[in-house]
Amino acid sequence: MAEAVTPTPLLKDELDIVIPTIRNLDFLEMWRPFFQQYHLIIVQDGDPAKTIKVPEGFDYELYNRNDINRILGPKASCISFKDSACRCFGYLVSKKKYVFTIDDDCFVATEPSGKKINALEQHIKNLLCPSTPFFFNTLYDPYRGGADFVRGYPFSLREGVPTAVSHGLWLNIPDYDAPTQLVKPLERNTRYVDAVMTIPKGTLFPMCGMNLAFNRELIGPAMYFGLMGDGQPIGRYDDMWAGWCTKVICDHLGLGVKTGLPYIYHSKASNPFVNLKKEYKGIYWQEELIPFFQSVALPKDCNTVQKCYIELSKQVRAKLSKVDDYFVKLADAMVTWIEAWDELNPSPADLSNGSSK
Amino acid sequence: MAEAVTPTPLLKDELDIVIPTIRNLDFLEMWRPFFQQYHLIIVQDGDPAKTIKVPEGFDYELYNRNDINRILGPKASCISFKDSACRCFGYLVSKKKYVFTIDDDCFVATEPSGKKINALEQHIKNLLCPSTPFFFNTLYDPYRGGADFVRGYPFSLREGVPTAVSHGLWLNIPDYDAPTQLVKPLERNTRYVDAVMTIPKGTLFPMCGMNLAFNRELIGPAMYFGLMGDGQPIGRYDDMWAGWCTKVICDHLGLGVKTGLPYIYHSKASNPFVNLKKEYKGIYWQEELIPFFQSVALPKDCNTVQKCYIELSKQVRAKLSKVDDYFVKLADAMVTWIEAWDELNPSPADLSNGSSK
Repeated sequence: MAEAVTPTPLLKDELDIVIPTIRNLDFLEMWRPFFQQYHLIIVQDGDPAKTIKVPEGFDYELYNRNDINRILGPKASCISFKDSACRCFGYLVSKKKYVFTIDDDCFVATEPSGKKINALEQHIKNLLCPSTPFFFNTLYDPYRGGADFVRGYPFSLREGVPTAVSHGLWLNIPDYDAPTQLVKPLERNTRYVDAVMTIPKGTLFPMCGMNLAFNRELIGPAMYFGLMGDGQPIGRYDDMWAGWCTKVICDHLGLGVKTGLPYIYHSKASNPFVNLKKEYKGIYWQEELIPFFQSVALPKDCNTVQKCYIELSKQVRAKLSKVDDYFVKLADAMVTWIEAWDELNPSPADLSNGSSK
Repeated sequence: MAEAVTPTPLLKDELDIVIPTIRNLDFLEMWRPFFQQYHLIIVQDGDPAKTIKVPEGFDYELYNRNDINRILGPKASCISFKDSACRCFGYLVSKKKYVFTIDDDCFVATEPSGKKINALEQHIKNLLCPSTPFFFNTLYDPYRGGADFVRGYPFSLREGVPTAVSHGLWLNIPDYDAPTQLVKPLERNTRYVDAVMTIPKGTLFPMCGMNLAFNRELIGPAMYFGLMGDGQPIGRYDDMWAGWCTKVICDHLGLGVKTGLPYIYHSKASNPFVNLKKEYKGIYWQEELIPFFQSVALPKDCNTVQKCYIELSKQVRAKLSKVDDYFVKLADAMVTWIEAWDELNPSPADLSNGSSK
């Protein structure tokens, strides 16, 4: 291929970029060389009367609250309002195999060499190569150029498992909770760690939704961002909730979750006082939620993400309602989410049966 | 402190550097600025009649096979001969709280900036700050300058647990098994990953003995490098064995294991044909050993490393003898090792009772 020809971007027709927003999407200008050939799904939060400007030349569909209500009807109750948790509506309506989601205050980061980082390309690489959740490789991703499995790594585990999730990181403003933001207002992440790694089976992690990609076919129905924001007692735990559920289900189904590269440049710290108000219940609830998720066991016959998720919703209702009534509502919403997912994403079998469930 | 004054090195009187060798220790010249103020324990392998030259100015004690036999008597049978596994004799005779062990083909590595890496200093930092085995922190070591726990990390887990092991990595020649060496003879590790991380609870890893530090008080008796080399059916699994045992015991006792920085420069690839001969049994045995270690459960009353290790030896005998008779011998040697450890390292209680066991 001649140098002058722009190479076809990876998975151009198999990936949607999902962006939740309340403002004009000027940030896309910076991403133009990397995103312009992909399809965007914009989920407009807040006042549906407001017009969100999208820079010219991008291929997108945009949904505001009226669209969500129209498309989902009563099931729209499972989609959060006035919280970036609404982004998961984009996962629901996507028809692609892969999703990349990014916040509108995230810019293109640079490598130490000064090279601009194509975050999407790295996510795709992460998703297309296997994960190794059953044993730790000390030289990080064994599938990367210049690396491999080290001495003592069992050969039977070297094929790895399919990767469901690629969790990217952030330079500049780190993703801290409100108390840490308050204590360290000036801390910036300047350390570029040149690694991608699999999070081992059985280990939970704090999944941030700012710079995240996943295989929608493998794990989509678990990527529900919960009930946050307007009318809810909690915010800023949408991605955490999705991360705990997703990891537990990936572990059960033998799928991989990676974290590390790519970095984006996170430009703007959110207001720590506002965040504290959103987070404070989560901060003490999570002390009970984490042990719950660490001990969740899914039965063997849960062999699809949907079945796992419904089973998880039952356990949430049974075991977390004592933490707060909110978890009963959340368990209901988890079920509604799966119903909405199946309605908008009928399986080939459903279609051939002519059933619309 | 004025610039001209050499600062007192960290833990100068609390750390021994253990080096197994069969040759003159010229490699120490390169390490002089970093090691000279520490005490060295040199374990001479092979012919005890040979004289090993140590560069001038180093403070050391040296043990050859005659010394090992004299000091341990019949228990010397647990110390390998003609294999770097003999290094664990140095752990036995050390009287210090910390041990750093390094191979004599490891040189000082450089950071991407060109700065020489003080590997020992980084190991000490790793050992002196806590580990976080119960939940994954996506920004790596939360105790490092410029980093912290990210949003969603439970506050109850932020104190961490004591760190027992610091596992360092290698630039240049990676630590590959013989098959990988044969397939990729020219592969060199040039990727400097600027991270230290805790290996999560419940996850095993391939521990390499080339560049390794540990808290001898916390985990010393588990750092037995097994029966390798002369008269044994296997080699190059000494550190792997120690790593599996150590990790299982650290998990049980709530201790941390870190991996990542510091790097050393590994200068010389060992002969892959010789390695293949040493390793081939290990390569198929490990397919049964890993599941064994992944499912080991230690009873609650195993509340010391010694008790854990004796219990582990029983399980090795009961469950691995079907793999090969070698594991019966190894289980015996594990018990002998603990007897030798207790003899050379009587607890204060033993001393005050006047008992020498």
